[in-house]
Amino acid sequence: MNTFGTIFKTSIFGESHGNGIGIVIDGCPSGIPLSTDDLLHDLSRRKAGAKGTTPRKEDDLPEILSGVFNGHTTGAPIAIIFRNNNTKSKDYSQLFDHPRPGHADFVSRVKYGGFNDYTGGGHFSGRITLGLVAAGVIAKKILSPATAAARILEIGGMTDIDKAIEAAQLSKDSVGGIVECTVKGIPVGLGEPFFGSVESEISRAVFSIPAIKGIEFGAGFAVSRMTGSVCNDNIIDADGHAETNNNGGINGGISNGNDIVFRVAVKPTPSISLPQSTFSIKEQKVEPLTITGRHDLCIALRVPVVLEAAAAIALADLSLVAQQSPRVFKGA
Amino acid sequence: MNTFGTIFKTSIFGESHGNGIGIVIDGCPSGIPLSTDDLLHDLSRRKAGAKGTTPRKEDDLPEILSGVFNGHTTGAPIAIIFRNNNTKSKDYSQLFDHPRPGHADFVSRVKYGGFNDYTGGGHFSGRITLGLVAAGVIAKKILSPATAAARILEIGGMTDIDKAIEAAQLSKDSVGGIVECTVKGIPVGLGEPFFGSVESEISRAVFSIPAIKGIEFGAGFAVSRMTGSVCNDNIIDADGHAETNNNGGINGGISNGNDIVFRVAVKPTPSISLPQSTFSIKEQKVEPLTITGRHDLCIALRVPVVLEAAAAIALADLSLVAQQSPRVFKGA
Amino acid sequence: MNTFGTIFKTSIFGESHGNGIGIVIDGCPSGIPLSTDDLLHDLSRRKAGAKGTTPRKEDDLPEILSGVFNGHTTGAPIAIIFRNNNTKSKDYSQLFDHPRPGHADFVSRVKYGGFNDYTGGGHFSGRITLGLVAAGVIAKKILSPATAAARILEIGGMTDIDKAIEAAQLSKDSVGGIVECTVKGIPVGLGEPFFGSVESEISRAVFSIPAIKGIEFGAGFAVSRMTGSVCNDNIIDADGHAETNNNGGINGGISNGNDIVFRVAVKPTPSISLPQSTFSIKEQKVEPLTITGRHDLCIALRVPVVLEAAAAIALADLSLVAQQSPRVFKGA
Amino acid sequence: MNTFGTIFKTSIFGESHGNGIGIVIDGCPSGIPLSTDDLLHDLSRRKAGAKGTTPRKEDDLPEILSGVFNGHTTGAPIAIIFRNNNTKSKDYSQLFDHPRPGHADFVSRVKYGGFNDYTGGGHFSGRITLGLVAAGVIAKKILSPATAAARILEIGGMTDIDKAIEAAQLSKDSVGGIVECTVKGIPVGLGEPFFGSVESEISRAVFSIPAIKGIEFGAGFAVSRMTGSVCNDNIIDADGHAETNNNGGINGGISNGNDIVFRVAVKPTPSISLPQSTFSIKEQKVEPLTITGRHDLCIALRVPVVLEAAAAIALADLSLVAQQSPRVFKGA
Repeated sequence: MNTFGTIFKTSIFGESHGNGIGIVIDGCPSGIPLSTDDLLHDLSRRKAGAKGTTPRKEDDLPEILSGVFNGHTTGAPIAIIFRNNNTKSKDYSQLFDHPRPGHADFVSRVKYGGFNDYTGGGHFSGRITLGLVAAGVIAKKILSPATAAARILEIGGMTDIDKAIEAAQLSKDSVGGIVECTVKGIPVGLGEPFFGSVESEISRAVFSIPAIKGIEFGAGFAVSRMTGSVCNDNIIDADGHAETNNNGGINGGISNGNDIVFRVAVKPTPSISLPQSTFSIKEQKVEPLTITGRHDLCIALRVPVVLEAAAAIALADLSLVAQQSPRVFKGA
Repeated sequence: MNTFGTIFKTSIFGESHGNGIGIVIDGCPSGIPLSTDDLLHDLSRRKAGAKGTTPRKEDDLPEILSGVFNGHTTGAPIAIIFRNNNTKSKDYSQLFDHPRPGHADFVSRVKYGGFNDYTGGGHFSGRITLGLVAAGVIAKKILSPATAAARILEIGGMTDIDKAIEAAQLSKDSVGGIVECTVKGIPVGLGEPFFGSVESEISRAVFSIPAIKGIEFGAGFAVSRMTGSVCNDNIIDADGHAETNNNGGINGGISNGNDIVFRVAVKPTPSISLPQSTFSIKEQKVEPLTITGRHDLCIALRVPVVLEAAAAIALADLSLVAQQSPRVFKGA
Repeated sequence: MNTFGTIFKTSIFGESHGNGIGIVIDGCPSGIPLSTDDLLHDLSRRKAGAKGTTPRKEDDLPEILSGVFNGHTTGAPIAIIFRNNNTKSKDYSQLFDHPRPGHADFVSRVKYGGFNDYTGGGHFSGRITLGLVAAGVIAKKILSPATAAARILEIGGMTDIDKAIEAAQLSKDSVGGIVECTVKGIPVGLGEPFFGSVESEISRAVFSIPAIKGIEFGAGFAVSRMTGSVCNDNIIDADGHAETNNNGGINGGISNGNDIVFRVAVKPTPSISLPQSTFSIKEQKVEPLTITGRHDLCIALRVPVVLEAAAAIALADLSLVAQQSPRVFKGA
Repeated sequence: MNTFGTIFKTSIFGESHGNGIGIVIDGCPSGIPLSTDDLLHDLSRRKAGAKGTTPRKEDDLPEILSGVFNGHTTGAPIAIIFRNNNTKSKDYSQLFDHPRPGHADFVSRVKYGGFNDYTGGGHFSGRITLGLVAAGVIAKKILSPATAAARILEIGGMTDIDKAIEAAQLSKDSVGGIVECTVKGIPVGLGEPFFGSVESEISRAVFSIPAIKGIEFGAGFAVSRMTGSVCNDNIIDADGHAETNNNGGINGGISNGNDIVFRVAVKPTPSISLPQSTFSIKEQKVEPLTITGRHDLCIALRVPVVLEAAAAIALADLSLVAQQSPRVFKGA
């Protein structure tokens, strides 16, 4: 449920305002150079502070509890934890009875019978993706020399992203965006035909990232308006390279040697300073709601590095699986 | 890899022109009324014959090998098989060295070292979805009284679907489309927060269906252009019903009591009668390619019932999981 | 639940007197020579007919539905089915209310709310191991040149097995036995440290075989009476060979290069011709019970080939997993 | 690989002399009262200090990082960690080239290409079972009012256990033992017929505990010498209670309402003070070996609470699974 992968298994845990959050990675090959420092670059990319992101400043310093010895992975499970230092639980206490629209407050209260940690979004906080980013660093090393790189295509429907953020700040509203990820250098043959397609595994990982409501591969939704003669990517060499890449590097669920390309839609941060209304569970009627505290104006700004991590984790696992099964029997 | 689900586990098998195809469903509750007849309605919805679909006529008659006794599921695994009767393997034999653009011919040859069954697309054929549809019938019974219903929104960018098909027939080309699925009546609380979100599980199942290149939930890609005050779905009653449904019935990955709504992009059938080119593996150069034989002009026409099945399978599994874990401890 | 394995995944189905039984094997490498004939030798070893086994004669003819093409595995899932031809359901109908001691009649009735197929033991019949034996043939090919061979050590406490069977026939009672399996040629390094040890995986597979109540590796229960200086197997060469094999070829859950050796205890067939008693569910009191029909006097006689299959399946999976994870990173 | 369970999923990590060890438990129901104090009793039972156990004194103080809020489980994953305080890495450094007989030194070096953390046994240390014991406390709460209790039956073949330990101390050798676990109050119906039998799941968990070489249920190996009329447990009431319990509370892999009883064989601690020999990897020849440092004389003394934990984890998971699948459909 909170676990992903067949061989490269990641198991995520933590709540926004609890003692700490983290991830356990089982099935990582031994012998990969790894230190805390290796994790910092991607973690800082995810960090708060840029215009449009929350002023909450976490140290975000990872501690590697296990699985690394003499600067290399040991082959045993890798546990990485992060302490929660800068929490303001009082900001959230009154929200228990007033579930914020667009958040998981209502569903988690119902699902867990009111026992959920509701402070700061609890286990549903975007902060949980810290562990995902850390695992992504390791997954990228496994995939190397293949590379995953994500970038923001548009924010609030605009390609001038600064302007979009400024407009949102003025209106005290939040904005969404579109982020694209390109993975270069993946060999032909990753992915399993049914239930384990490259699209299945990437989308499963990606839809764990809060606020994502759509994903498309290659030409994506535009394929629905293409004819076959336009959409088909004609193969031009023995490595599978093609004239076009409408299929986003994937045929029949299997990587085809071209770039794996996908885009996601990120919804605007549900926490906004504007007055809203919600159903009061205590009073059993709709009441006005004002959300105070620190929030991102635009979560999409933080998504690129998390998207890379999700893609890398899915592909690293498929890569380890594909080398074994199904594959050609070398035999007796 | 070819298996889906935590409790309601489906394991799919078969090749288009082999002895047969089918599915094994483990973890199905006992006591569900089930007969071969129950499967026929959805199977006939998937069947060939409508304008724009292939003239190949399979009987598509299911046989239940196990797991049903005295008209009810027994609790033991249910195996359902379909014989392949109407195969024309000779149509495909020359394609081994000429991988068809847009198909899995090239990737499966590389992945399996040339041992793949390439006739009729082998394990990558759309015919494999027969098993999915059969499992979907059972999943729908588990979800009942909730219902899943899919419909075609557009074909080739047009809402007049007959016109779109006729245009494609004239041009000897194929067309794609968009299909929407709505699931009504799902209670609050299905889905697991990380890696097991409703979006994760549905998209993982859906991307197993050949030809799908994108999925979006609720307002989908349109959320990227909304502000938070527009996108947030304000809760208006104790059951979680909301004024709008931009989140497609899902918050934080958990069902929120509103309709679960998602759309998929279906690419045009890659097999077209128009002349194409591909890389000849034998000659090691680009050569012209003409595909003969029977094909769908528009796979999207067959997708609705398969989409319902994929959604039902994912939700039935989440439903069985959610009743136990995490849930409220009734305890000692 | 009815599925085993991480990469080499087997999913078993069927009831003794239903339409058929079988197995689906996902994750099998492509390119392994395989035909129906390859399966027959081990299937015939399991077959009824020897002294002490049931006179029920099944054809036990397997049909490979998928996953094999031109005499080799394709890399797609392999489905193998067996028809049930020689069933006598009437033998069993009166047993629904009179659960046979030592059988699963009572527990399956309770577990499945009376919907279980109780004829011939249903899904709990020893006949279900047919699929296991078929999968075992394929697993043995994956493990080759390593070999698995099982033999009966004793029946009814006696090493003269014919004498033990004759005594049981005279007394109209049944007898148990001990079977030992030795796997030669497994390289160092199979098995995963926690929850995936060689002992964990073999025992998990083996305890699926009906009637087995104990398993021990190497010196087994005798280690509890050894001192460390006796029990330790001193390593004598660079391949890990040791002077003794008290650890049964496994240290810390990982194969150590010596023979993997284990023994199982098989209970006597619970169906006996002698009068017994049981609790009548209908009458809600203890009543006399007489079991008619055909039964093995000694199931242990059929166990060796099934035991080999279980061990081969577990080890083939560990073998495919171990080559990837954890293993040494070859790097960029 | 280092993960166990379908619903109640435990994922274990850590090395003996690394920063810390721990466990993540996913799928735990919400609302279970839980605090650090609840863990201490079983952790202290496992702790060193009794005669025959190592003088190394770990604080063994658990920290709950996540999944608990206001004194109850939240339904989100529970992470529990333990710091390693009292490590003496220098004791072990010379052992890298001299794999200790009976330990995992040799296999882990080969398996992980020399990247394994070999200090203190690394990931193969018995210390890793701390996490298992912590998870066991939670599993016991789920199973409550059912109870699991293990006890030592014999040490070094003797029932006078003090005498056995004294003899071992005098001879500077180590001794093994037999431990029995009884689980009372498990309802009828836990366990899944194939690959998920109660015996399969318990043995899989139990064989993760270092030093265990055999397991038997009910009468165990003694059934091999029984006749069916003796071995069969005659049912005497509607709850499935029987006159005898030779099947150890399990029929056909399913719990039958009687006590679940099993015994394990624990080998003597492989680390002994007596001189031994092993193969020097550096010198490529057999050399004398003397092991210094702190060790248990008899690991079996610490096994009971770990055995209870392993059984409780397996049964808690089966309990959560069984309530859903297969089970009786309540239906539309």
